[in-house]
Amino acid sequence: MITENKSDLELVRDFHRVWHPCTQHKDFETTPPILVERAEGIYLYDRQGNRYMDVIASWWVNLFGHNHPRLNEALTRQLEKMAHVMFAGITHQPAIDLADSLVALSPPELEKVFFSDNGSTAVEVALKMSLQYWQEKGKTQKEQFAYLKGGYHGETLGALSVCGLEIFRNKFEKVLASHLPVEGPDCFRCPYGLQRESCNAECFEPMEKALSENSDTIAGVIVEPLVQGAAGMMMYPPVYLKKLQTACESLAIHMIFDEIAVAFGRTGSMFVCGAHDLRPTFLCLSKGITSGYLPLSATLTTDEIYSAFYGETRKLFIHSHSYSANPLACAVANETLKLLTENNFLESLKPKIAALKEYGKQFDSMEGEFRQTGMIAALELTKKKKERFAAEKRVGYQIFLEGLKRGLFLRPLGDVVYFIPPLVITEDEIGVMLNTAHDCIDAILK
Amino acid sequence: MITENKSDLELVRDFHRVWHPCTQHKDFETTPPILVERAEGIYLYDRQGNRYMDVIASWWVNLFGHNHPRLNEALTRQLEKMAHVMFAGITHQPAIDLADSLVALSPPELEKVFFSDNGSTAVEVALKMSLQYWQEKGKTQKEQFAYLKGGYHGETLGALSVCGLEIFRNKFEKVLASHLPVEGPDCFRCPYGLQRESCNAECFEPMEKALSENSDTIAGVIVEPLVQGAAGMMMYPPVYLKKLQTACESLAIHMIFDEIAVAFGRTGSMFVCGAHDLRPTFLCLSKGITSGYLPLSATLTTDEIYSAFYGETRKLFIHSHSYSANPLACAVANETLKLLTENNFLESLKPKIAALKEYGKQFDSMEGEFRQTGMIAALELTKKKKERFAAEKRVGYQIFLEGLKRGLFLRPLGDVVYFIPPLVITEDEIGVMLNTAHDCIDAILK
Repeated sequence: MITENKSDLELVRDFHRVWHPCTQHKDFETTPPILVERAEGIYLYDRQGNRYMDVIASWWVNLFGHNHPRLNEALTRQLEKMAHVMFAGITHQPAIDLADSLVALSPPELEKVFFSDNGSTAVEVALKMSLQYWQEKGKTQKEQFAYLKGGYHGETLGALSVCGLEIFRNKFEKVLASHLPVEGPDCFRCPYGLQRESCNAECFEPMEKALSENSDTIAGVIVEPLVQGAAGMMMYPPVYLKKLQTACESLAIHMIFDEIAVAFGRTGSMFVCGAHDLRPTFLCLSKGITSGYLPLSATLTTDEIYSAFYGETRKLFIHSHSYSANPLACAVANETLKLLTENNFLESLKPKIAALKEYGKQFDSMEGEFRQTGMIAALELTKKKKERFAAEKRVGYQIFLEGLKRGLFLRPLGDVVYFIPPLVITEDEIGVMLNTAHDCIDAILK
Repeated sequence: MITENKSDLELVRDFHRVWHPCTQHKDFETTPPILVERAEGIYLYDRQGNRYMDVIASWWVNLFGHNHPRLNEALTRQLEKMAHVMFAGITHQPAIDLADSLVALSPPELEKVFFSDNGSTAVEVALKMSLQYWQEKGKTQKEQFAYLKGGYHGETLGALSVCGLEIFRNKFEKVLASHLPVEGPDCFRCPYGLQRESCNAECFEPMEKALSENSDTIAGVIVEPLVQGAAGMMMYPPVYLKKLQTACESLAIHMIFDEIAVAFGRTGSMFVCGAHDLRPTFLCLSKGITSGYLPLSATLTTDEIYSAFYGETRKLFIHSHSYSANPLACAVANETLKLLTENNFLESLKPKIAALKEYGKQFDSMEGEFRQTGMIAALELTKKKKERFAAEKRVGYQIFLEGLKRGLFLRPLGDVVYFIPPLVITEDEIGVMLNTAHDCIDAILK
């Protein structure tokens, strides 16, 4: 791997020193990571000037493209005042403005905003608030969470304890709190033989049963609304969430919406809950909140929850991170919300969403399913009769490597090739993205 | 609370929208948070121009003062290239440089660096790596961690499960994995009647027993070296850590050093482990790593650990955060390390450390203990015979309020008034800080 090339020498340093997330480093022996030097709009550039389209928006975070002049300016403007200050006993304008905007943009029941650093912590905060709420209310037996078997909510051990996916859990099962996994929607392989466009979420049955049979012990239920991301962009209809809301309201169970991956225009609306008239008790936000600039997250909740912690000193909610409500991140988030709400930005996504659908039709001839929710599209590749490829074949990984050769940074989840580009991608670029992906897949499957 | 004053109107918005960490919001009815508008050096300024000394370095994070030209420049220079890019399948220069520097500055056994966002996640990563290591090695019964009853390691539920302090745990006990709490050092109230300056860590006895009796099931032991911060800046001598190392090495137990609060010059050296010739298996870093600018953390470990995850695909370490190794944060961290290592900076702390000691003598006449480890000083206030004040008296909180009147932002832990100023504080400012704190305490206790 070592050559005279400066870039390669840096890759050797990387190999010797850096432990990358979710990476089998042995793969780097043959294909080292791309050394990205700069980024602009929807493109990443390596040191040699090779260009890669950021097809998955750098782990689903980037909305307005890299190196955006207004986001850069918002950051530097705040930097001139202060980078950071602690957030207990102190407040600051960027956080106040951001909390106010998030409350204004979300369903009316959500009134309070708690800031933390990433999606996992946003979920941990919701879980802890829910648990403590029931304790303060004397319902101390409510200490369990229901979650979907396809659900993903982060990888700190609390968040992981409500994650349904075996691959994330299996090495750590012994230290995970025991909660209640429930069979969730699986529209591609619907056991009821129905279609997500026309069904009545008949698959809500196991959740209905789990909640009604355990309502005394269940504090809350957590879901990724509409799209179960890490499970392979499994998409399901809003009627499932309507039924969930009805059940939660009648059984006094908190409804926790993890919109970390789907909020801020990603499905075509600001928030899934708002677009579908849903009223979660907790709304967890992160990723796109800073348009892919800086780590920041928020957990929104109701005054009913907040008021249970208000009063005596011993009732307070004890959870902190040193950089909670980091002013730089809040400033970028405020500018992100401006970009999302001005000039009918969300409206401007409609032709792009249509383009994703249109160019997606070329996958109809492949085995599997092309599915789409707003600006998220995914192609689940299978053998005949929806049969999965053998894991050892690493079909998704081969497609990833092929994508690199053709200027796409894809990162399939197993054999699900997915597309979560920055929202500023153009219709033409959507065409290039899907056409090139098609070529990559063809090259590997043939 | 509402007046015509713009600042007050913003505080009303804060009160209605923001849920602050570790805060009983009812206190804001009488004393709202300070609305900090800008910060410079060791001072915070509110909208009216009132100045507060940042005595606790914004939750122990700030090393080089606010609004530091070189840190600002490092951030904007990186911003021109890219704010962020995902860190799986991709790498970038700021992360490579930072990993390389951290490895160079830490004990030679630590060779690999895993980045995450905050102290809690740095600890969660160490716990998860340790657990999985033993699984990959076939020692699947090693699934427990020993921790100190005075230990604090963060508040996500995994980190909280190895936190010994009841106040952080008690509402969440039912969802915490069961690990092994061990009586740790308590030098102020030493049960052996010894002095920390001259003892031989006789108090290691319970840990020795716990580890030797449970070595088959213990994966690792986690400690805050030298200073147990959240417990009230409880300080103990390095000989305890030497004994811990001997025990861990002979019993095949991982030693996890949580240096989140004590690294980067805080105790006078770069890392506690390096200064005392200790060889932890995992070193958790955060807080000062960006000198108080941006959330970032790192978990360092050995090649022995790393190699257990190298090879087959199924062995990889599955843990990720979207903003892992954020380039902006890494760039600021690289500049922070430059500032720490050039011009004999650590050497320059010596007269400051001496000044803290000298000015601290004025507390000798008070009941309690003034203690110090490097640039950390703390005054534990008690009644006669080391008896604690009643919690309802909120002595520490009264001192906090008095501090605000006199231009100090203190935030006592219970009745422990502590001082963790930015490292760039001058000797004169140390005098002002401790003299003013003395006046505040006098005003409250008389």
